[in-house]
Parts: sequence; C-alpha cells; structure tokens
Amino acid sequence: MNLVLLFPEDFVAEARVRLQGRRWAHVRQVHRVGVGDALRVGLLGGAMGIGKVRALDAEALEMEVVLDQPPPPKLPLSLVLALPRPKVLNRVLASATSLGVARMALVNAWKVERAYWGSPKLEPDNLRRQLLLGLEQSRDTVMPELSIGRLFRPFVEERLDAWAGPGTRLLAHPGAAETCPVGLPGGGVVAIGPEGGWIDEERESLRRAGFREVDLGPRILRVETALAALVGRLC
Amino acid sequence: MNLVLLFPEDFVAEARVRLQGRRWAHVRQVHRVGVGDALRVGLLGGAMGIGKVRALDAEALEMEVVLDQPPPPKLPLSLVLALPRPKVLNRVLASATSLGVARMALVNAWKVERAYWGSPKLEPDNLRRQLLLGLEQSRDTVMPELSIGRLFRPFVEERLDAWAGPGTRLLAHPGAAETCPVGLPGGGVVAIGPEGGWIDEERESLRRAGFREVDLGPRILRVETALAALVGRLC
Repeated sequence: MNLVLLFPEDFVAEARVRLQGRRWAHVRQVHRVGVGDALRVGLLGGAMGIGKVRALDAEALEMEVVLDQPPPPKLPLSLVLALPRPKVLNRVLASATSLGVARMALVNAWKVERAYWGSPKLEPDNLRRQLLLGLEQSRDTVMPELSIGRLFRPFVEERLDAWAGPGTRLLAHPGAAETCPVGLPGGGVVAIGPEGGWIDEERESLRRAGFREVDLGPRILRVETALAALVGRLC
Repeated sequence: MNLVLLFPEDFVAEARVRLQGRRWAHVRQVHRVGVGDALRVGLLGGAMGIGKVRALDAEALEMEVVLDQPPPPKLPLSLVLALPRPKVLNRVLASATSLGVARMALVNAWKVERAYWGSPKLEPDNLRRQLLLGLEQSRDTVMPELSIGRLFRPFVEERLDAWAGPGTRLLAHPGAAETCPVGLPGGGVVAIGPEGGWIDEERESLRRAGFREVDLGPRILRVETALAALVGRLC
C-alpha cells in the first residue's frame, strides 16, 4: 500500500479523515505509524497529497489531509482480455491497474472455460477490490474503466469502436511476422488471448476490426507477464 | 506447462522417455492426452522437439521423442535483484526465467528484512523448482544462472564485472531524471531494488559501478510487474 485511498465517507471534517478496518490495520501493522507521522493519501477519483496522523487508537486512525497534487495520467491504452482463469484474474486486474491501463474489457474466447464465467471472482465487489489494490500499489486514484464484454463477436465487431476510439490496434500472437513495435503514438488497444491463444476465427474477427498481429518473442508468457512486457514496450 | 521438460534419467531407450509423478499427472489431467497424441518436449539444457505418447497407464507415461530444435536464445540481460519477500520470490524467479533473463543475482539491501534470508524458499531445491517452472511456461530448456550474492557491497563493487561483463547498466529508480531507454544494444544489467527502494548509499555504490538511474514512470510497480515492463522495453 503505497497510497492510502480515501473515500468521501471517511471525512469527519473538511480536511480530516477517520479510518477503520483494513486501512487502519495496514497502516498500523505494516507502516507502524505514530501520531505526527505522514502518509501518502489520495481521494478516490480525485487529488493526492499527504495525511498527518493526528490520533491513533485500537479502533481507528485520524489524519489531517492536504490534497494538492493531481493523480498520474492514465496511459493511452485499452486492453481487451480473454477472461483469465479465476486464480489469475485478481492478479491481472490489479497489475493492469497498477500499470495505468485506461480501460479493460473482459471478453469470452473459444478457449476460455465456461465455468470461469460463474466464478465469484467476477462479482462486482471483488472486481472493484482488485482495482483499488492496483491503485494503492501504484499511487493513483483514478479507477480504470472495466467492462465485462462476455460475447466476443458483438464486442469486437459492434462495440469496440465506441469503447476504444481510434488508435493503433495490436494483437499479441506468438509467431506473427511483425515484431511488436516500440511506442504507441496516439494510443491504442491491445488484445491478449486466453491460455492456448485465440482461435483462427477470433483472429479473423480481430483483424477485420483493425488489429495487427505482432510477435513478442519465442517465449510463451503468462498473461500478467505478457501484459506488463507489452505496456513497458508500448507506453 | 507449455513444454514438458525431460531429464537424462527419464530416458529408457535412446529416443524413449518414461515420466511419472508431477509431469505425468499434469499431462494426464490438464493436457488430457491419449496414446498417439503429441506434446512439446525439451531436454534440460538441450534441444526441444516433439514427444509422441506411446503408452499411458495409472502410473506412468511413455513417449517417443524427436529433439531437433534449438531452445530460444537467452536475452542479453542480467538482473541484480534485492531479495524480495518470500511470498513474492517464487513468482519473480519463475517470471524472470520465463522472460529469458540470462542470469540473476539475489543480493541484500538495507530495506530487505533480515528474516527473508532465513526463508525455506531460498533452499536450492525450491530455487531450482521455480526456474524449471519458468522454463516449462515459456518453452525453454536452458536454466538461467542464479547467484546468491547476499552481501551487497562486495557483490556490486568486486564481483559484478566478472559476473555481468560489459554492457549498459541501469538502475530503475522512480523520479530519476532520465526516462528508461528503449532497447539495450550490446545487452546489460538491470538492478531492481527492494520494496521501498535502494537507500542513498546503495545508489551511490551502484553509480560507482557504472549504473545509470532511469525512471519507469510515476507509478510504483510490484517487483514482478516492473521486471516484465523493463524486459519488454529493453529487449
């Protein structure tokens, strides 16, 4: 937790917050703060700054906060992601958020097992929690847009233009003739397939929607590793 | 497991292997192979190719293998890594291996908790297991060199030249004046600090050893995310 995220309901006065529960426990046990110490804080969707601990007891923490810095700008990057298996989903969402991806769509693919769509990890509370963890990790306050596309073809063929806008569209595909470019002037969209990859019909749909197939090297990477490598290369 | 790694002791004839235990269970339960199916295989430290399942029962699997392809070349990249906390270490080792990093050194740093050095995760069997998992994930057969440096200054000031050879040396440091370059002609070394970063004295040692401080953007990334983003950008 490199930033303590604040919510409107934390404010007990104009510049004073009272925290309990998870954030209070973390700040106490991990940061081991005392009265007078300063912590980095940020209002969800708003400015960031410093909170000075004014009171601390066995139940809650009170801070006086100055919020005078803008959050970092989002990367001009949208991500179309075949729904990863539940075990991996949390890490991927938090990691993409921490990298500053602007928007993500989880879509179905032929090689996504149907049972993944019934996972409790897809419940809104869990999804939101993972995005918040990514913001706390990376020191950001602005949630990425998360869209659950579910049906692949309607998403790619009908909704994508409105969702992603213009820009380069890339599809990471092992063995593609073109090496993944460096930099992404004007921003764009990257599509990452499921374990085992997109099938030919899905690649064809993506190509019709303007995606270029690019190669990231001879190695098969886990989705969160591929995602970070792509962002590091493109942004 | 995108590649079934083979070891000399698996061979029951010149081109025939017999697998039991974890690999047998994985191939049966996850790949759901039957007799006649083909799997990608590779001999540890050697060539890769195809294995055809010739026999399969409740105890073992036999394959006829043709090993006629070289493994992918390692990236010309060495990694100096402040020992991550045990929970994170496994993932970082497997991930760096899957990315194709040529060599890694785990070193101490001021902000590495001393208890981390006593973790059973540092036992040779576990370290080896994580590297093997990274090879199986990425389809590679060549182990990266792993060195446990422990003492920071002797490693950086005395052993580094012999260990890493010439090439660019970069130190990922949030807020550095220079943005992380793209590409790494001639290869090089990247140093990644602990949670909380290197302290000033450590940065000074690294600078004296020829490391340039580079910035990866305003966000604080987890070590495995930062590592993949750096590799994607540099290699």
